[in-house]
Amino acid sequence: MIFKRKFRVHWVDTDIAGVMHFTNYFRYFEACEEEFYRSLGMDLNFLKEEQGVLLPRVEASCQYRVACRFNDEIEVALSVKEVGPKTLTYEFQVLKKGEKAAEGLVKCIATTLDWKVIDLPKEFAQAVQSARNRTI
Amino acid sequence: MIFKRKFRVHWVDTDIAGVMHFTNYFRYFEACEEEFYRSLGMDLNFLKEEQGVLLPRVEASCQYRVACRFNDEIEVALSVKEVGPKTLTYEFQVLKKGEKAAEGLVKCIATTLDWKVIDLPKEFAQAVQSARNRTI
Amino acid sequence: MIFKRKFRVHWVDTDIAGVMHFTNYFRYFEACEEEFYRSLGMDLNFLKEEQGVLLPRVEASCQYRVACRFNDEIEVALSVKEVGPKTLTYEFQVLKKGEKAAEGLVKCIATTLDWKVIDLPKEFAQAVQSARNRTI
Amino acid sequence: MIFKRKFRVHWVDTDIAGVMHFTNYFRYFEACEEEFYRSLGMDLNFLKEEQGVLLPRVEASCQYRVACRFNDEIEVALSVKEVGPKTLTYEFQVLKKGEKAAEGLVKCIATTLDWKVIDLPKEFAQAVQSARNRTI
Repeated sequence: MIFKRKFRVHWVDTDIAGVMHFTNYFRYFEACEEEFYRSLGMDLNFLKEEQGVLLPRVEASCQYRVACRFNDEIEVALSVKEVGPKTLTYEFQVLKKGEKAAEGLVKCIATTLDWKVIDLPKEFAQAVQSARNRTI
Repeated sequence: MIFKRKFRVHWVDTDIAGVMHFTNYFRYFEACEEEFYRSLGMDLNFLKEEQGVLLPRVEASCQYRVACRFNDEIEVALSVKEVGPKTLTYEFQVLKKGEKAAEGLVKCIATTLDWKVIDLPKEFAQAVQSARNRTI
Repeated sequence: MIFKRKFRVHWVDTDIAGVMHFTNYFRYFEACEEEFYRSLGMDLNFLKEEQGVLLPRVEASCQYRVACRFNDEIEVALSVKEVGPKTLTYEFQVLKKGEKAAEGLVKCIATTLDWKVIDLPKEFAQAVQSARNRTI
Repeated sequence: MIFKRKFRVHWVDTDIAGVMHFTNYFRYFEACEEEFYRSLGMDLNFLKEEQGVLLPRVEASCQYRVACRFNDEIEVALSVKEVGPKTLTYEFQVLKKGEKAAEGLVKCIATTLDWKVIDLPKEFAQAVQSARNRTI
């Protein structure tokens, strides 16, 4: 399964080199992840407020291939790489006119609100896992 | 009293026009405000954690005169405009080689952690007030 | 005429107080302004690349009324306040479930790429002006 | 050689989970890299303006171990991993009270202003290389 969302590169995303600053790709990864949870009827706020669970990132990486520029319409594609008992790993691609502009990985771990590592909430993990197995 | 701190404009602060993005001046205003509290032996985290008080902004404004650029050393000057019973108002100047590059205002209001407006904590208000009266 | 666009508050927009950081309202103002130009068949990049014109901000302000939070759907409403010979002034409202969460103003000035103040490009100014006069 | 700079975590760096947002570590990596160039008497702006050279990032990664929080004083330690003919690779550690909070890697490539890959400017590469060989 690949979950895709379109975004538009904003003026504030750019830097003096005229392209999207490298840190902002991670912002779009996360925006896509948020939309992915919403598509499953869940959200990070629910996890936090109702279940007392946070999903801090333990790893984030990105390889940059083609610079994205102001006004570019980019498509961020999320795929679920792994649903561990305590961790979630996502892979991302940033597409610009069908071309791969960047790709990355983000790994999160489930913790309590005071940052003790725990198992992912079962229902949440199952929803992500079944999205992963879906063929689209 | 005027409280001053120097900052360096970072690459990430700039945009495609080659200058600091207008939103980032507010980030430096706040960084200066944080240092100001620290100079008084206080901090926003203490207010939040120990006293259950937040200082959300109710107003922020900036006038931009001279563009700040990557690597510029800027000096942010904070002055306390008003210490109300429930609000704090700061004025800021951004100086670049002695020239006024921007000036702004930020007004905060004291609230509980669930956002009910309250009086400023007395000790906190007094510390800010006495800094205001100090002549430097 | 009022031009409206919906946005979603992202995790990265929030701060330790659990609400959208005050600087990020200005990012959404600008995102709305960018969409406004696009709706007129123009964009800031065209101005810069084709006409050698920048629109740096000379003033920005915001009054905050109701905190916006993670996952909130907000609507940003832009209205053209003034189309001067050299400046453009926009007013913004941020609506959250129909309630006014914030309102602000942004004033830009036309300059050459080396920051000399000039008249707004005629066609651009006319497009903004006629959008202003349109009743929607 | 390890080049170190201290930074303070700002309110705006935090998110609703009460910790520094994962994207902001990359901002501090870059701030440290900028200071490193400055310590060598060089800067990215000089490269761009005088030599027509950009250093876009082709890779960035970070592993997060201990959350950094508002007001934390963090130390970012840069070490030069590799000076290739066309690329520069840096490793970073973020230390908090002597403990490793995060570590990462950033790889840049030299390009012309229109994004053609080129060799690193000789003098620049030599300065970074000799910093690398220095024992501190």
